[in-house]
Amino acid sequence: MRFDTLIRNGIIATATDTFASDLGIADGKIVALGQNLPAEGATNIVDAAGNYVIPGGIDVHTHLDMPFGGTKSADDFESGTIAAAFGGTTTLIDFAIQQKGQTLRTALDTWWKKADGKAAIDYGFHCIVTDLPEARLEEMKSLAGEGVTSFKLFMAYPGVFMVEDALIFKAMLAASDSGSMICMHAENGGAIDVIVRRALAEGKTAPKYHALTRPTTAEAEATGRAIALAEMAGSPVYIVHLSCSEALERVREARDRGLPVYAETCPQYLYLSIENFDVPGFEGAKYVFTPPLREKWHQERLWKGLAADQLQVVSTDHCPFCYKEQKELGKDDFTKIPNGGPGIEHRLSLVFTGGVHGGRFSVNRFVETVSTAPAKLFGLYPRKGTIAVGSDADLVIFDPNLEQVISAATHHMRVDYSMFEGIKVKGAPRQVFSRGRLLIDDGKFVGRAGHGEFIKRQRYNLR
Amino acid sequence: MRFDTLIRNGIIATATDTFASDLGIADGKIVALGQNLPAEGATNIVDAAGNYVIPGGIDVHTHLDMPFGGTKSADDFESGTIAAAFGGTTTLIDFAIQQKGQTLRTALDTWWKKADGKAAIDYGFHCIVTDLPEARLEEMKSLAGEGVTSFKLFMAYPGVFMVEDALIFKAMLAASDSGSMICMHAENGGAIDVIVRRALAEGKTAPKYHALTRPTTAEAEATGRAIALAEMAGSPVYIVHLSCSEALERVREARDRGLPVYAETCPQYLYLSIENFDVPGFEGAKYVFTPPLREKWHQERLWKGLAADQLQVVSTDHCPFCYKEQKELGKDDFTKIPNGGPGIEHRLSLVFTGGVHGGRFSVNRFVETVSTAPAKLFGLYPRKGTIAVGSDADLVIFDPNLEQVISAATHHMRVDYSMFEGIKVKGAPRQVFSRGRLLIDDGKFVGRAGHGEFIKRQRYNLR
Amino acid sequence: MRFDTLIRNGIIATATDTFASDLGIADGKIVALGQNLPAEGATNIVDAAGNYVIPGGIDVHTHLDMPFGGTKSADDFESGTIAAAFGGTTTLIDFAIQQKGQTLRTALDTWWKKADGKAAIDYGFHCIVTDLPEARLEEMKSLAGEGVTSFKLFMAYPGVFMVEDALIFKAMLAASDSGSMICMHAENGGAIDVIVRRALAEGKTAPKYHALTRPTTAEAEATGRAIALAEMAGSPVYIVHLSCSEALERVREARDRGLPVYAETCPQYLYLSIENFDVPGFEGAKYVFTPPLREKWHQERLWKGLAADQLQVVSTDHCPFCYKEQKELGKDDFTKIPNGGPGIEHRLSLVFTGGVHGGRFSVNRFVETVSTAPAKLFGLYPRKGTIAVGSDADLVIFDPNLEQVISAATHHMRVDYSMFEGIKVKGAPRQVFSRGRLLIDDGKFVGRAGHGEFIKRQRYNLR
Amino acid sequence: MRFDTLIRNGIIATATDTFASDLGIADGKIVALGQNLPAEGATNIVDAAGNYVIPGGIDVHTHLDMPFGGTKSADDFESGTIAAAFGGTTTLIDFAIQQKGQTLRTALDTWWKKADGKAAIDYGFHCIVTDLPEARLEEMKSLAGEGVTSFKLFMAYPGVFMVEDALIFKAMLAASDSGSMICMHAENGGAIDVIVRRALAEGKTAPKYHALTRPTTAEAEATGRAIALAEMAGSPVYIVHLSCSEALERVREARDRGLPVYAETCPQYLYLSIENFDVPGFEGAKYVFTPPLREKWHQERLWKGLAADQLQVVSTDHCPFCYKEQKELGKDDFTKIPNGGPGIEHRLSLVFTGGVHGGRFSVNRFVETVSTAPAKLFGLYPRKGTIAVGSDADLVIFDPNLEQVISAATHHMRVDYSMFEGIKVKGAPRQVFSRGRLLIDDGKFVGRAGHGEFIKRQRYNLR
Repeated sequence: MRFDTLIRNGIIATATDTFASDLGIADGKIVALGQNLPAEGATNIVDAAGNYVIPGGIDVHTHLDMPFGGTKSADDFESGTIAAAFGGTTTLIDFAIQQKGQTLRTALDTWWKKADGKAAIDYGFHCIVTDLPEARLEEMKSLAGEGVTSFKLFMAYPGVFMVEDALIFKAMLAASDSGSMICMHAENGGAIDVIVRRALAEGKTAPKYHALTRPTTAEAEATGRAIALAEMAGSPVYIVHLSCSEALERVREARDRGLPVYAETCPQYLYLSIENFDVPGFEGAKYVFTPPLREKWHQERLWKGLAADQLQVVSTDHCPFCYKEQKELGKDDFTKIPNGGPGIEHRLSLVFTGGVHGGRFSVNRFVETVSTAPAKLFGLYPRKGTIAVGSDADLVIFDPNLEQVISAATHHMRVDYSMFEGIKVKGAPRQVFSRGRLLIDDGKFVGRAGHGEFIKRQRYNLR
Repeated sequence: MRFDTLIRNGIIATATDTFASDLGIADGKIVALGQNLPAEGATNIVDAAGNYVIPGGIDVHTHLDMPFGGTKSADDFESGTIAAAFGGTTTLIDFAIQQKGQTLRTALDTWWKKADGKAAIDYGFHCIVTDLPEARLEEMKSLAGEGVTSFKLFMAYPGVFMVEDALIFKAMLAASDSGSMICMHAENGGAIDVIVRRALAEGKTAPKYHALTRPTTAEAEATGRAIALAEMAGSPVYIVHLSCSEALERVREARDRGLPVYAETCPQYLYLSIENFDVPGFEGAKYVFTPPLREKWHQERLWKGLAADQLQVVSTDHCPFCYKEQKELGKDDFTKIPNGGPGIEHRLSLVFTGGVHGGRFSVNRFVETVSTAPAKLFGLYPRKGTIAVGSDADLVIFDPNLEQVISAATHHMRVDYSMFEGIKVKGAPRQVFSRGRLLIDDGKFVGRAGHGEFIKRQRYNLR
Repeated sequence: MRFDTLIRNGIIATATDTFASDLGIADGKIVALGQNLPAEGATNIVDAAGNYVIPGGIDVHTHLDMPFGGTKSADDFESGTIAAAFGGTTTLIDFAIQQKGQTLRTALDTWWKKADGKAAIDYGFHCIVTDLPEARLEEMKSLAGEGVTSFKLFMAYPGVFMVEDALIFKAMLAASDSGSMICMHAENGGAIDVIVRRALAEGKTAPKYHALTRPTTAEAEATGRAIALAEMAGSPVYIVHLSCSEALERVREARDRGLPVYAETCPQYLYLSIENFDVPGFEGAKYVFTPPLREKWHQERLWKGLAADQLQVVSTDHCPFCYKEQKELGKDDFTKIPNGGPGIEHRLSLVFTGGVHGGRFSVNRFVETVSTAPAKLFGLYPRKGTIAVGSDADLVIFDPNLEQVISAATHHMRVDYSMFEGIKVKGAPRQVFSRGRLLIDDGKFVGRAGHGEFIKRQRYNLR
Repeated sequence: MRFDTLIRNGIIATATDTFASDLGIADGKIVALGQNLPAEGATNIVDAAGNYVIPGGIDVHTHLDMPFGGTKSADDFESGTIAAAFGGTTTLIDFAIQQKGQTLRTALDTWWKKADGKAAIDYGFHCIVTDLPEARLEEMKSLAGEGVTSFKLFMAYPGVFMVEDALIFKAMLAASDSGSMICMHAENGGAIDVIVRRALAEGKTAPKYHALTRPTTAEAEATGRAIALAEMAGSPVYIVHLSCSEALERVREARDRGLPVYAETCPQYLYLSIENFDVPGFEGAKYVFTPPLREKWHQERLWKGLAADQLQVVSTDHCPFCYKEQKELGKDDFTKIPNGGPGIEHRLSLVFTGGVHGGRFSVNRFVETVSTAPAKLFGLYPRKGTIAVGSDADLVIFDPNLEQVISAATHHMRVDYSMFEGIKVKGAPRQVFSRGRLLIDDGKFVGRAGHGEFIKRQRYNLR
């Protein structure tokens, strides 16, 4: 027994277990767990005393280097993945966007190029489908064989991403046949569009109207519709960035009936609220993303949903735009504000602080929501998402007592503000490993752009 | 006190009360209720001993003289309204269909012409909206002032009647502003269309596949969506021809929250089921209408829904096509079968038999579902729908013990079959009056075509 | 046609209808409704122009002349029924209490004596059962034949009124056999007793602790249990003085399943809240009754429950004790405060103000909750509870615009305070008739003690 | 690194993970997991190729050597624990019964004596409380410090085990203070008792009437009441032997609200139904236990509840009585039939067959329901219930493809019949280890009576 790296004295935490054990790494894999594992021959010996050793975080909802109305999201695959690594995330799944008329592969090729040689951590792609003639349906099935086993559809943004129910239903039937997951942006875009135009007509152009024109009922309705379509198609469905109690009720009810329905929420919905728009001038634009911020009481409902497995995942929907020049495009009209917020870096700390220190759930449930569940849902497991013999040595030495104050002044994302500015978190990574290789060492990035690999994901199979 | 007609010794039954009383009619109105009302001067004296006297039935869902794929529904406003009168229905609301590009008034004009001089009972029109540019929105509002205070939209039949959510939402906002009711055909047409095309591709062309390709989930989803859109728009919504438990649950849940959500079912969903397709050859076509027949257990759920005011109304969706030549158009392809069934004549008897004799609800609830509730929901009340001083003398002398066997051989609808062939009912009209004038006298039609008038309906106001 | 009394020009309002009509009374009964009824021969001609004519109110929950821990409730059958008449209530149902070991008839005899010769309005009795050996079960059945068709049981007050589930279940089986209604005080007395004793042990003796030691969960639990027992017994059940959302949910759920489950709330739960205990010194004692006042948000939930027929009845639970000398018995220990509050006089005005003027429901629903529904549920209908030919002429000329400020200074109950002191109501009786006889004439009592008769009620039959 | 026992080539399955790994045992503990662990020095080398290695089963509901109406349950701690070991169960929690008037410790002493020197596997005790004066409340708290951290109460069996709500509530408050779990037998004994006596009076004495006199509503009601009492007391509650959909709904609803409410079901409710009473003569007595068997459709609902974590645990409620002489005590009166059935031996095989092979859930969820969840809920974790470094080497080499037919002819329980006679299972233990020591080796018991130790359990803490 000889290890490249030996992590000693840590407390291993998985989605189920918490136990003191050394951990041996060889060839980028976890090869042994045990008391007093032999150190001889090990290149690196890491003392994890007082810390948890957890599987690397998996962020299944990011938008790096994404074009948006003439601009693009502020982080590319280099800056974005490095920021992710700082926060303990070692795998992400980004979105390749099919333009209307394009093949899906064209979309993927475009995104592969964006990531290739730049990503500091491993990655995969969901494919956003906007157009689905017969040939594309076949392509959906063949892509599943190449490791792209999830497709995202929009029920919002008419004229841009929004697709009709018939298309959604066809995509779900294809997913059902080929073991893919359908990810859904669930908001009733038709109704919202009418509300937005009425607001603009009444001169309501400030950032907060972005939130006030997207009622929770529109999200709940679309969530319920997505579930109904999936139920008829016999396919699983994953609701992205769920933001409110009403939508959560739809997911809960479906899961109570045993349907393969899943959902994620994001730290912004757990920590921020409509009250964040009470800021001077145009600053509310920092909080313009979709679904929007909700009334404060939804936060606790979402935390409870995470605790009770009504929500399975916390992702970030990281889609950063700088306040200067980017967000400012919507100065006179909230519909022109680039939608999105930066969050890829602080997910683990925020969930740990509110979840574990907040007394809402255990460290195991924390691991499950930020790593194990996303891995299982999106075909990364068992290679990623847990600490087990044979899994990739994607690991975080996580200090449960390390305190930090989130700030744009210190974060590593390429954005000029933070949604979470001033929020104090407790619990943060000390070291971060990807396939056995150290990426982050006590606040320093020691990895490299290009280390990250595209991960061929397996088909959906949760039974 | 002098009456044109005096009805003696009957048991008056309203939605609330049951009491022995004479009833005096003058100038087509009910002018007195009382014990031993004076007979002198009365032209007609009717002895109602042993019978109920109830308000005339109101059927808010009929399709007379309706064009459908090259043919048209088999009853026109003469034969249809006479059949209605035989069954104790004294007012109906039919549907004027806007062709795309047409004004709503054009649609109404067309239907006014169909009814004028032919209708034997009073009538109104809902307007089916298929196209809704800005000018039509204004027209919706102005029509409400002229007595057309309800509009119907379709979430099914893509390419024909189906409209997008944005259009629905705009119509609901207009309804909310102008005191109109939105009637909704709630089925997810997008998904159903895909299922239908797959069935045809697999050679499933028999009539029963019409039913098997329209899942209850598609109806429940659309019902929930209609409710959500109405909730956001602040408008009432009325779900037409609700057929299944899952859709009923959506209505129930909304009503429990106090929303102005209403629904009707029809006798075919209370008496027939998917098992009716177990007939030889093409005969199942007799049961091809939409939503389709469901599994038998839904029937009891619908009856309970009526008893508990989760459903408010029983209408017929009368849309008759002859088996010969009409239904036969779909001999090789169920999608070509003209959709609809004949029912205008037997509504009261069927509801009384199953509801009152079946021990499921009182005679008062019977009156409410077939007359009072439709009158109140659609602006006919208090002129129609009750027995009160000042109301129209639309009255039925209803014998609770009269037994009949429904049959095409004896019915008065102009159709060559009956959906309810052989079903024995107990409880039927002896005499039927419209505005004080006798239409039906013990099985004989004694009214006249053209007696019926267009009724300007009032705006929706249920508080 | 000759009437003793003719009421002209009023707007008749029943649970269903609203219409302009004269109303003729003869021999204490309503004998005619009609336009321009003949006046000749009428002794009294009342002009009701501008007013509603509604059926007299029915209060099915009062405690007149009731012994309680050495004292007794402050109104006897004379003062209490006169106060009731002032408020438009023309029938009440009080409670005859069986002492342990007593026959039920002994209890009734005691209460008959209390009422006889004193009551100014008609009355009936529920019988409170505390002890139920085999012989008493038989007596329950025989009493139903004598017009006592409802029995009340307590799930609270261990050692006093509380009975075990087995006894409740036996009583329900007897009720099911004999067409009686079971009324239930639904609170888990066992748990509450433990909480109360802990509070006292901690020195929490002030009035507000009466409320704080009776959680809504205890009411909801008992409500659910009562429903489950009734469901197993096949009997109807009527939950008295329902005070909170959680209990209402249980009733709603049962009714949605079609069970014969009913509930009343009282004006104190619609208008008052836990905040009423924010008064100096011992004054909170004025609000000590059971179930206690709840958080303010429950009020709106109860109003919605009334609107949606989740609650059927508003009664008063009138059980008056003077602040001086009576309430003061509990100065040092809230458990010694006589439980109850005065309300018999203002029920109609309070429900009309909040319900009809508050825009929550129609005048018809108002009539239904204060008169028709209690009459139907408790076997008084059709003699009482509606305006129909043949019914008792228990009538209220109700001015919808008459404004009053409730105050102990002006009320007619024999109590030294009002729970509703200072509350402004709009809508109040002008004249009140009992069996055709005028009791109240514009603020003056013109009836007499002893006019009221015991009413033999019919068996429960709501189908 | 030197192991006493080395298990090679198995597939480790925990509640979360499935991975190929060797496993090293030293001093009765799991000390290493890894690929190619060193064999030198190991006394035993076990080849687990083709098999799962899972944590030993934990059965938290057994009644060994239990007195019952003059007889006692047929297995003592020797025969019962050996049978358990054959089935892959390595820890059980039995019940020590307090007689009225006894201290709790007296009860425990009695049961300690029963187990001492006889048990072949480790064990703990819940304490059944029947009597709870102040002193006993203190004793509950002190016992928690000695490893008895769960107490069972009965809402059924009036006159025997049934306790009042006030006592339940006090026990829950004590549990809340001391970190104990309350286990609840949830059936409304008061109502059931009345129903049973009516049945007997009607001559319904056959075994099936045991089932027909215990409605699901009685179980659901009591389940809801237990939850309400626990909610008010702030304590966790664990519903034992949940048998029906209606009770499950109560648990689900509470868990959806985030309450610490848990429940177990048993294999008999998953595999048997009321139809099992369709056997000749008195044979139905074999299926007389409480709660009784239900209609068949409940089975699938319970399986779904397990899959969706609405139910957390499968236990056996093993309480064996021989058909001859024991069950026969109730030949003429079903109430005299000793209640209970034998099941300790086949739990893992039955759950694996229906759950994993039946496609209802994963091997991980199987492990969770039969081992990990019971360990966590009852303070045995992390010592028991998982495979992790540092945990007891309670392990089962489980062959997923081993087929067996359950039969009294081959089982090891000391009972003359099997509830599951003839049922074919797939998936069974090959070897079973307790604290590193081999108990079962391919169908042979190689352990010893007395090996089992009393386990001091930790306090309840699931966050």
